Amino acid sequence: MTRTDGLPLSVHIREVGPRDGLQAEEPVAPSSRAALVRSLVLTGIVDVEAVSFVSPKAVPAMAGASEVLAGLELPPAVKVAALVPNVRGAELALGAGIRHLTVTVSASPAYSERNVHMTREESIIEASAICAIASSADVPVDVVLSCSFGSPYEGDIAATEVNRLCDELRSGGAAAVTLADTTGMATPRILDEVLSMTGVDVGLHLHDTRGTALLNLYAAISFGVTRFDTAIGGLGGSPFAPGVGGNVATEDVVALLDDLGVETGIDLDKLLVVSSQVEDVIGHQVPSRVAHAGPRTRLQGSQP
Amino acid sequence: MTRTDGLPLSVHIREVGPRDGLQAEEPVAPSSRAALVRSLVLTGIVDVEAVSFVSPKAVPAMAGASEVLAGLELPPAVKVAALVPNVRGAELALGAGIRHLTVTVSASPAYSERNVHMTREESIIEASAICAIASSADVPVDVVLSCSFGSPYEGDIAATEVNRLCDELRSGGAAAVTLADTTGMATPRILDEVLSMTGVDVGLHLHDTRGTALLNLYAAISFGVTRFDTAIGGLGGSPFAPGVGGNVATEDVVALLDDLGVETGIDLDKLLVVSSQVEDVIGHQVPSRVAHAGPRTRLQGSQP
Repeated sequence: MTRTDGLPLSVHIREVGPRDGLQAEEPVAPSSRAALVRSLVLTGIVDVEAVSFVSPKAVPAMAGASEVLAGLELPPAVKVAALVPNVRGAELALGAGIRHLTVTVSASPAYSERNVHMTREESIIEASAICAIASSADVPVDVVLSCSFGSPYEGDIAATEVNRLCDELRSGGAAAVTLADTTGMATPRILDEVLSMTGVDVGLHLHDTRGTALLNLYAAISFGVTRFDTAIGGLGGSPFAPGVGGNVATEDVVALLDDLGVETGIDLDKLLVVSSQVEDVIGHQVPSRVAHAGPRTRLQGSQP
Repeated sequence: MTRTDGLPLSVHIREVGPRDGLQAEEPVAPSSRAALVRSLVLTGIVDVEAVSFVSPKAVPAMAGASEVLAGLELPPAVKVAALVPNVRGAELALGAGIRHLTVTVSASPAYSERNVHMTREESIIEASAICAIASSADVPVDVVLSCSFGSPYEGDIAATEVNRLCDELRSGGAAAVTLADTTGMATPRILDEVLSMTGVDVGLHLHDTRGTALLNLYAAISFGVTRFDTAIGGLGGSPFAPGVGGNVATEDVVALLDDLGVETGIDLDKLLVVSSQVEDVIGHQVPSRVAHAGPRTRLQGSQP
């Protein structure tokens, strides 16, 4: 069954706030991070990137991944993913019982060398090695291809090149590929160009650096994409530093999709309660606009 | 000539920052407001709502409209509009040499009574009276219909009702009608519903209360609308109070439309210089994201 307006009946949301969001914040205790994941799941979220098995020296806010996982107590139907940077991280994640892995590879050679300290080709080989050990544990790996819609160093990455990288990652064992707009360079034009090459069986991971994350999500669903990473509150990056933007906010996405009649399975009212709890945990306002303005359906008293 | 992708070749931008933006700020001296308008015009903007002839007691930041106008020294091709709340304001504006008027009427009865202290019908009659005296001076009036995509008091206003109001305003002498999303309640769904009734020969005035202003502008151009109000920096409302949003930012709109190949006639680099000047004038950051992140085409050094 399809709609006549070109929009999908439903989309799949992977909540990345506990990982991509909180890694940009001051460290939050593993017990609080586990509580956040449990609260998110109670809103209807069924897929969460909950932890990262990275060096606690490199990313202090992600220390204690095993403690977070031990505190989750989630129903088995909920997908709990861990981001791993290398084979060692994958082994730790699998040892902790993780059944879904995410791995990042950059479409931008300069971004890869600068941020991952590997050439793009080295990181593709590392991703394949991770896929191999995950496969032996029957664990699917979603490879997130950063800078898919442009790099702050090289500008646009050719759509043919992004597509070639997707093919290479799938050949290397990736069960899924997610195209990431790491520095908020996507536009409907470049989304169209890239998705026309890759097809729409990809996830999208959108950042709001230039205030375009929700716009790009809207354009992408009209092109046929149905898998999105979102973060509670719009956390991520350094949301309060000029020019850096967090992830597209789960609240803002659910509010938009509710209005468009696109099913997410997520209860917006419950989600807004979690937003408020997140602000208490991190000690500052989240960037999400709907978190503060409320959904458009929440009316004021009708008398002046 | 049309494009095959459904987008227009060009759109017309009316810059409302000097009026709808600065009225929400601490008062800025008329000479500085005139300088801002001159700077905006040098970026390629040809239509500016520069002043408002309201009571300085009601809106202190808009005091000194005649002084602003006297300081403009603009080429005659530039449209300079004044917002007027009533016949008295229209007479003052015409006396000061204004050749374009804007008037606000609310589609929401409760919003009208609460904010304009007139019933909706009374404000329509006032708008017609303004159109009559403007007409005798051969000055066109653009009536801005607030809450066209929803009211915080009544919720959705029926599209048939919005269309009926447009017809009534045009019958009353409005040369143009602009549909305003005063409290950021528009979505692509309701835009489609309303524009399907009114047709696309309307302006749109979009606020970013829920982070959807740029998304709604994108949806609207794909539906065929080609006239938009925007404000330098995304000024307007109380941009730093939770839940209240400014206008869609001129910089963000021009950056998006440049990327989509939709002509605005406005030079983004020059505009970003003006954004920076505006921050100096108002003493705080503007909400525009592109003002801080820069356009996606502005790359960093390619070496780590």
